[in-house]
Amino acid sequence: MSINIKRLEADLNQLASIGKTADGITRAAFSDADMEARSWLVTKMEECGLMVSVDPAGNIRGKLENGTDATLVACGSHIDSVNNAGHLDGTLGVLSGLEALRSLKEDGVELSHPLEVIAFSDEEGRFGGMLGSRALAGVLEQDEIETATDVNGNKLADCMTAQGFDTGKVLEAKEKPENFKAFVELHIEQGPVLEAKDIPIGVVKGITGLFKWEVSFTGQANHAGTTPMNMRKDAFQGLTKFAAKIDDILAVNGTEGSKTTIGKCQLYPGSPNVVPGKCVFTLEVRDTDQQVLNGLEKTYREILEKTAKENSLEVGIEELSNIRATPCDADIVKLICSVANDQGIENIVMPSGAAHDAQYMAGLTKTAMIFVPSIGGVSHNPRENTSLEDIETGANLLKATLYELAK
Amino acid sequence: MSINIKRLEADLNQLASIGKTADGITRAAFSDADMEARSWLVTKMEECGLMVSVDPAGNIRGKLENGTDATLVACGSHIDSVNNAGHLDGTLGVLSGLEALRSLKEDGVELSHPLEVIAFSDEEGRFGGMLGSRALAGVLEQDEIETATDVNGNKLADCMTAQGFDTGKVLEAKEKPENFKAFVELHIEQGPVLEAKDIPIGVVKGITGLFKWEVSFTGQANHAGTTPMNMRKDAFQGLTKFAAKIDDILAVNGTEGSKTTIGKCQLYPGSPNVVPGKCVFTLEVRDTDQQVLNGLEKTYREILEKTAKENSLEVGIEELSNIRATPCDADIVKLICSVANDQGIENIVMPSGAAHDAQYMAGLTKTAMIFVPSIGGVSHNPRENTSLEDIETGANLLKATLYELAK
Repeated sequence: MSINIKRLEADLNQLASIGKTADGITRAAFSDADMEARSWLVTKMEECGLMVSVDPAGNIRGKLENGTDATLVACGSHIDSVNNAGHLDGTLGVLSGLEALRSLKEDGVELSHPLEVIAFSDEEGRFGGMLGSRALAGVLEQDEIETATDVNGNKLADCMTAQGFDTGKVLEAKEKPENFKAFVELHIEQGPVLEAKDIPIGVVKGITGLFKWEVSFTGQANHAGTTPMNMRKDAFQGLTKFAAKIDDILAVNGTEGSKTTIGKCQLYPGSPNVVPGKCVFTLEVRDTDQQVLNGLEKTYREILEKTAKENSLEVGIEELSNIRATPCDADIVKLICSVANDQGIENIVMPSGAAHDAQYMAGLTKTAMIFVPSIGGVSHNPRENTSLEDIETGANLLKATLYELAK
Repeated sequence: MSINIKRLEADLNQLASIGKTADGITRAAFSDADMEARSWLVTKMEECGLMVSVDPAGNIRGKLENGTDATLVACGSHIDSVNNAGHLDGTLGVLSGLEALRSLKEDGVELSHPLEVIAFSDEEGRFGGMLGSRALAGVLEQDEIETATDVNGNKLADCMTAQGFDTGKVLEAKEKPENFKAFVELHIEQGPVLEAKDIPIGVVKGITGLFKWEVSFTGQANHAGTTPMNMRKDAFQGLTKFAAKIDDILAVNGTEGSKTTIGKCQLYPGSPNVVPGKCVFTLEVRDTDQQVLNGLEKTYREILEKTAKENSLEVGIEELSNIRATPCDADIVKLICSVANDQGIENIVMPSGAAHDAQYMAGLTKTAMIFVPSIGGVSHNPRENTSLEDIETGANLLKATLYELAK
């Protein structure tokens, strides 16, 4: 009982042509390109006999009925994109889900549970991120719907209204846990691990949590020529001494999957011949284990304060975001591994370092994810790609897993 | 034979009122404020009987004739300023020189050498820096005069022409070494050393040389969530590891006066959730010993290359400037110390970390500098100050030194 890879490939190509520009694919949530892709998807779902509904948050839900009221076995991802995106992020999960349901229908197998493939709204965060899955999971607030804007100042409410949605009803998309049996999201890894290990399948054991801080070290700006090294209060030297400790901090307090990134840094006054009196940088720390993350938060705070003190600097820490780590459901993880092993597909259990709709679905039902390799680890880029062979392997595993859950 | 501190203080106050704004003093070279200050200075020089000339580079030279053709004993500094400056940088050297000559004239002492006080053009670098002293020392090129512009795009040539100078003749300001016996520049320290040591006089043994590089580390930008720490090519981590070595490099290859500053740093793409694939930073290294500076240049190049290699990065080094270190004349340094000691003035021999007109005058004649303390080490700032007591001590030392050289 395999999926039809030619048909899946054709779907991927068709969807990739919507919102295509010279620099990649741009289907920002609730843009005209996004709406065109939605229409195309609804038609595709209807063509193969799924029962299609669009909920008040804009989530497109295609259901393979089985004539019972049993709990739903769901899969899905998103079809909106970042600007100048590739053709697989999100899309692969939706279209593999569509193909899985379509071919299960064709196979004529008996199912105890209805199946559903969901395309969630605004996963990529034009207006904040994972809007649709948060609405479904009931963790979205009306306030955000009314105040969210994109980077160009367009209001979410205006954009939804313009595309025919009623912003007063978005929260009605909230689902009941008792309606679901499980949720599985297939996604490209967006990282280099599977490719480096030459393994086609990653079974996600947990989705990263993170805290993101804006940190400032403040010392004193001084003339670079007249201020002896030992009389300086050099804010950047403080950052240097802190950053040099990151590897050790992770080795002692983190896990193999812990990550720390300083991605942004600004020196003040920012002149080659002035000792920097201030530096402001971002510190972003991720792990899939919330306990570990709590420990890292405490340690980083202590080390920042200690480094500041040792270098005669003042430290300021502002939290920009804090997302809790989400473990995947151990039973579903085990099931996916066992289905893969039965099919002779090599697989590893791994963390997801990126955020996904699955992390909100995990609040609603038993959830796990399947990763397929990203060539070169590249994502959010027109060069994003996965071999057709790996796509076929992933889609077949998704289909088999859904069948095991729904049979 | 003391200077008149009341008169010097009055001169400082009067000159400070020219170009004064709410945010400090702004007398950019060849601006109207600079021209007003020049007129004021010429009048002051003439009032006390100095023979005044303005050379084709705009240097104002006030000569205390002694009826002989003997070599000149000169002093001086500059009266142009950075934007929002204090009232002592440059100005103190010119007005102390004026007061020294004026009071020596009043003292009626016999001199074997004529004395001169010089106010050099554009020391602060509106159009490149130390324009007047470079013209006098014969190290200015016609090309620079024609192409130099300020940060707002105004051309040096246009500004000089507008103020009545002939840009075709600037190079004629070049002097002959045989016309000079010595040059002494009094200046505020612009650093914290004298204040910290509570010593009123620094005798400068050499003026810093420097090299300034723009360095780039290039790795690979990656998703901060999906790229494991050990698979990253993080350009900023490369900088961190390099910067952490600076103290050791200076300890092994530098002197007590060596300085290294990273004052500017930019990460690309500069997003909190992207591993920085590139970072560009400035590296500015100073020492008063050219041999030491050459050694540091070699070492920094090696360590940058080594660090890049160890972190799987590419390194690029672009030289932005390279100024040779200038030793002061040992005889003049010794003379100043001995005059100070005779007067019971505590003093130390120290480097100048900042650039000064004296470093070009050193190419023309035996040169040294006298530093007086800067309160809080502050300069290029309206808070720049020196106690009146220290100003008096410095001006008296300058006068006594000039007398010893010219008597």
